[in-house]
Amino acid sequence: MYYIGVDLGGTGIKIGVVDEKGTIIEKDSCPTRVKDGYKEIVKDMSQVINSLKAKLNISDDEIHSIGIGSPGAIDDKNGVVIFSGNLEFDYVPLAEEMKKYFDKPVYVGNDANCAALGEYFALNDDSIEDFVAVTLGTGVGGGIIMNKKIFTGFNGMAGEIGHMGLVMNGEPCTCGKRGCWEAYASATAIIRETEKAAREYPDSYVAKLVEENGGKGSGKTAFIAQRAGDKIGDMVVKNYVQAVAEGIINIINAIQPQVVVIGGGVSKEGEGLINPVREYVEEYSFGPSTVKKAELRLATLGNDAGIIGAAFLGK
Amino acid sequence: MYYIGVDLGGTGIKIGVVDEKGTIIEKDSCPTRVKDGYKEIVKDMSQVINSLKAKLNISDDEIHSIGIGSPGAIDDKNGVVIFSGNLEFDYVPLAEEMKKYFDKPVYVGNDANCAALGEYFALNDDSIEDFVAVTLGTGVGGGIIMNKKIFTGFNGMAGEIGHMGLVMNGEPCTCGKRGCWEAYASATAIIRETEKAAREYPDSYVAKLVEENGGKGSGKTAFIAQRAGDKIGDMVVKNYVQAVAEGIINIINAIQPQVVVIGGGVSKEGEGLINPVREYVEEYSFGPSTVKKAELRLATLGNDAGIIGAAFLGK
Repeated sequence: MYYIGVDLGGTGIKIGVVDEKGTIIEKDSCPTRVKDGYKEIVKDMSQVINSLKAKLNISDDEIHSIGIGSPGAIDDKNGVVIFSGNLEFDYVPLAEEMKKYFDKPVYVGNDANCAALGEYFALNDDSIEDFVAVTLGTGVGGGIIMNKKIFTGFNGMAGEIGHMGLVMNGEPCTCGKRGCWEAYASATAIIRETEKAAREYPDSYVAKLVEENGGKGSGKTAFIAQRAGDKIGDMVVKNYVQAVAEGIINIINAIQPQVVVIGGGVSKEGEGLINPVREYVEEYSFGPSTVKKAELRLATLGNDAGIIGAAFLGK
Repeated sequence: MYYIGVDLGGTGIKIGVVDEKGTIIEKDSCPTRVKDGYKEIVKDMSQVINSLKAKLNISDDEIHSIGIGSPGAIDDKNGVVIFSGNLEFDYVPLAEEMKKYFDKPVYVGNDANCAALGEYFALNDDSIEDFVAVTLGTGVGGGIIMNKKIFTGFNGMAGEIGHMGLVMNGEPCTCGKRGCWEAYASATAIIRETEKAAREYPDSYVAKLVEENGGKGSGKTAFIAQRAGDKIGDMVVKNYVQAVAEGIINIINAIQPQVVVIGGGVSKEGEGLINPVREYVEEYSFGPSTVKKAELRLATLGNDAGIIGAAFLGK
């Protein structure tokens, strides 16, 4: 059997045919026509799905279900997007609309939650029931898996871990509050702090790298400077590591998942990021060191997590 | 049927006989002989239980189960206290020991989680499945109820919401980290801030109240000053309200419980506390205002929550 996974974004739609093992057999994409409304968007999805079916020579009988990961608050029982600012969706019956094209079960989940579910299945470890995925990208996204299922809360909004607070009255966040984790642990945040450090310490290697890049930092700049022995780069990375780790501690102290994976652009730093985060979490998470706590791992699926997780909503 | 609830504390043990409706029919207490070890502690418990049984003329047949709320990390499947600093417990088989005295099911849970379970049953509303109780006392305690049961996490340590961070690198916390919610939202914290404000603004009414109380503030001082129109009292309360509310927002953004109750000493301020907290949470919790979010209520059981929740571990 095959599972169709749809990763619906504000600018593009990525669709994949996924096998039982979670491998994407084939994928394709199309733009998201936000202004044309959800019916046109679902029609576009159906056309991509049909072309993938034709390309792979798959019949409807071989398709288990279709899953759609969408931004926003989701009513997963009814397959409705309650609200999405990016998509201009307000109580959109996405599953019902998709069923007009395919006589298959259709599931809808929040996109970040789908990515978390994808990473969860990628662990391939049946002993893990409670799990959290964190994505360090433009923002900080995430999803909570409880009892092997996406945990949505009663209103479909659970798992907005990027908007847990880290610094009361701190940096402004896109959500309207100040000091959210996202405002300190996103790629956007480390870029902001890298550029700030470059201005404050113009003789540092970080400043040189920023200057060479036309005055702009990237998510990598401070790590590169740190590896080259630059004290200022080291400071920026250490502050960033603390911010990432403190947010993970908040999750651990509250819900004690067995495994936390870190994904997103900044996670490409690999051991250079996760090792110091682990050390900090181990030292400062609540409780005695004799009690086993969450294992921290790097995410493995990259940008495919959303497609695979959406596909496996019906698994 | 009756349920026996044991609230095991670092200095005293409170034991109650609870009926099906969650009413304590009779209760008694004894000191906790920490230095004599767990076998003596359980023996003391058994004697109090027997004297309560005799007083009420209850036979063993009328007892459903015995529940014990203990500080520390708990292995609830096996009724073992994995670790408790206060009780000097290290893998103590509390349920097994209690069964030597009574041929009844014995359950063990974390004390703060038991208090949360007590408050959950007091709601008496079967439609509520996910719930969080917050206790604003010497520290900030709490418990998470998921699917109508205490959520402990895989290691028995979940629900330590007082040690979620609020201010990175902020006030030192008893847990070794800095800036925990507890360090800003506990009674201890508002007392600290009240005394600080009194020193900084010696002409304020808050300062007068502190002076009249021998240089000491209480959890009530700032609220009293605020009600009397004192600007400094108002400032201390507003900062405190923000701290309480930001911690609740962290819980809501992460797990979206249906109801959050606030208990503990400071909650005795009632509407004067919970109304401004509600307003702040409504404005700053993540997501559109069209999506229903957690209802904030005052806890109702007071100090009995721990006994009732422990008793209902077996319900």
